[in-house]
Amino acid sequence: MALAFDVAGLTEYLHEIFPQVRDDFAIETMEENHLRMRLLTAERHLRPGGTVSGPSMFALADCAVYALILAHLGQEALAVTTNCSLDFMRKPAAGADLIGEARLLKLGRVLAVADVLIYSEGMAQPVARASMTYSIPPKR
Amino acid sequence: MALAFDVAGLTEYLHEIFPQVRDDFAIETMEENHLRMRLLTAERHLRPGGTVSGPSMFALADCAVYALILAHLGQEALAVTTNCSLDFMRKPAAGADLIGEARLLKLGRVLAVADVLIYSEGMAQPVARASMTYSIPPKR
Amino acid sequence: MALAFDVAGLTEYLHEIFPQVRDDFAIETMEENHLRMRLLTAERHLRPGGTVSGPSMFALADCAVYALILAHLGQEALAVTTNCSLDFMRKPAAGADLIGEARLLKLGRVLAVADVLIYSEGMAQPVARASMTYSIPPKR
Amino acid sequence: MALAFDVAGLTEYLHEIFPQVRDDFAIETMEENHLRMRLLTAERHLRPGGTVSGPSMFALADCAVYALILAHLGQEALAVTTNCSLDFMRKPAAGADLIGEARLLKLGRVLAVADVLIYSEGMAQPVARASMTYSIPPKR
Repeated sequence: MALAFDVAGLTEYLHEIFPQVRDDFAIETMEENHLRMRLLTAERHLRPGGTVSGPSMFALADCAVYALILAHLGQEALAVTTNCSLDFMRKPAAGADLIGEARLLKLGRVLAVADVLIYSEGMAQPVARASMTYSIPPKR
Repeated sequence: MALAFDVAGLTEYLHEIFPQVRDDFAIETMEENHLRMRLLTAERHLRPGGTVSGPSMFALADCAVYALILAHLGQEALAVTTNCSLDFMRKPAAGADLIGEARLLKLGRVLAVADVLIYSEGMAQPVARASMTYSIPPKR
Repeated sequence: MALAFDVAGLTEYLHEIFPQVRDDFAIETMEENHLRMRLLTAERHLRPGGTVSGPSMFALADCAVYALILAHLGQEALAVTTNCSLDFMRKPAAGADLIGEARLLKLGRVLAVADVLIYSEGMAQPVARASMTYSIPPKR
Repeated sequence: MALAFDVAGLTEYLHEIFPQVRDDFAIETMEENHLRMRLLTAERHLRPGGTVSGPSMFALADCAVYALILAHLGQEALAVTTNCSLDFMRKPAAGADLIGEARLLKLGRVLAVADVLIYSEGMAQPVARASMTYSIPPKR
């Protein structure tokens, strides 16, 4: 399936529709069924002790998969998060950026399913794993 | 099981250990195995269109259950979120506070399990449902 | 929402469409948004040690919610399980029947969401908790 | 981490502790952090229409990860399933064996986390995805 955007075009489009997250996330690489997104970790993403908060990890997983779906379906598409299941496995390094490796497992007519491994930059093993499901409303 | 805190005491303790969320959440009621927490919805919790974001719903569920575990185990206790599964079912009303109704299903020696129904104030049916699992490290 | 079946009628219909499970499950009570189903525990549902297996608990949760959706939508309806999340909290009593208390949280145009508390007969606290999501295909 | 068993030794040990599933599952390959298990699909695993049932997919995922944990920890180890989250994505081919590709993401002191992609033999894309969490009780 050919992608509807390149990285620059998708980045620009995400900034337009989600201006409030433009300082939080950056698409690093993108190909069919895969997208790598970086959380540009800042003070507002941290818990006491300096590790990235659970809600920030969820936001990274959600944004990575949303971008990956848009990359496949194009900008007329909508996708609504219906389920997110997160396993928190290790403590991220204090203050480090997070890297989300999103993999699209199904892109159906009404549902999309993906998972995301989340890494703390500089650590070999993943800090968290997310499963995400999206409802794809019919085009208007 | 007698609770280790009353609402005022637990609120004070949460403000001390999580100063960055003191303006976000308020405990409304608390009894054995149940706690109701309010998300004081503000601009920073919203998505385009004015509805509360998924990460903010996760933060509400996580904070409600964390508080409920502390209420049972007291302030020497630790609890680390290990799994969160969220179903997003309806769109919250724009700008409305959210109410999380947390229910403790298991408080074991090493694991605690709870679920949370999340309501948008003024709507009868829940907007989201969360299942939460926590690891309870041994006391130091 | 008026139910499309009573207990006897729904039981008969389930036996017709799922003859292989007629000896496994019995609907105990049913009302709007709630259904209680019993797993008639037999040797084939057990693990070593005599407790009911995880797959048998999943089957109970799935069958209870499927029946609850049919009760609301009637026999022309289809429902396809898309997600199941199970928390196993306590060991069931050896050989005891299990009781599933299913609660419908959303019955939308394309998705239904429910949860189920599973009890081992004679124990006060639940042994497991399930969240279930179903896709509702358009009527033919 | 060196494995505590080879395929033949682990198969023999599983047959000894779970005699009731010896005709259901076969370990195909095993290496550090990965194990491939086959469900030897038979009439008892099927739903009307001939596709493998959800509970049978759960059993495959659970058995594959349990075997993978034992392969790392050895036969004195115990592992208790605490959470299972399954996404059902495609209909398996009627009557075909299923293949579970299990990947160990964390093997900690008290918790293990893994995921499993489930394939219907002969289909390129996965039919289901499972996330599994296990509690590791202290050795006696």
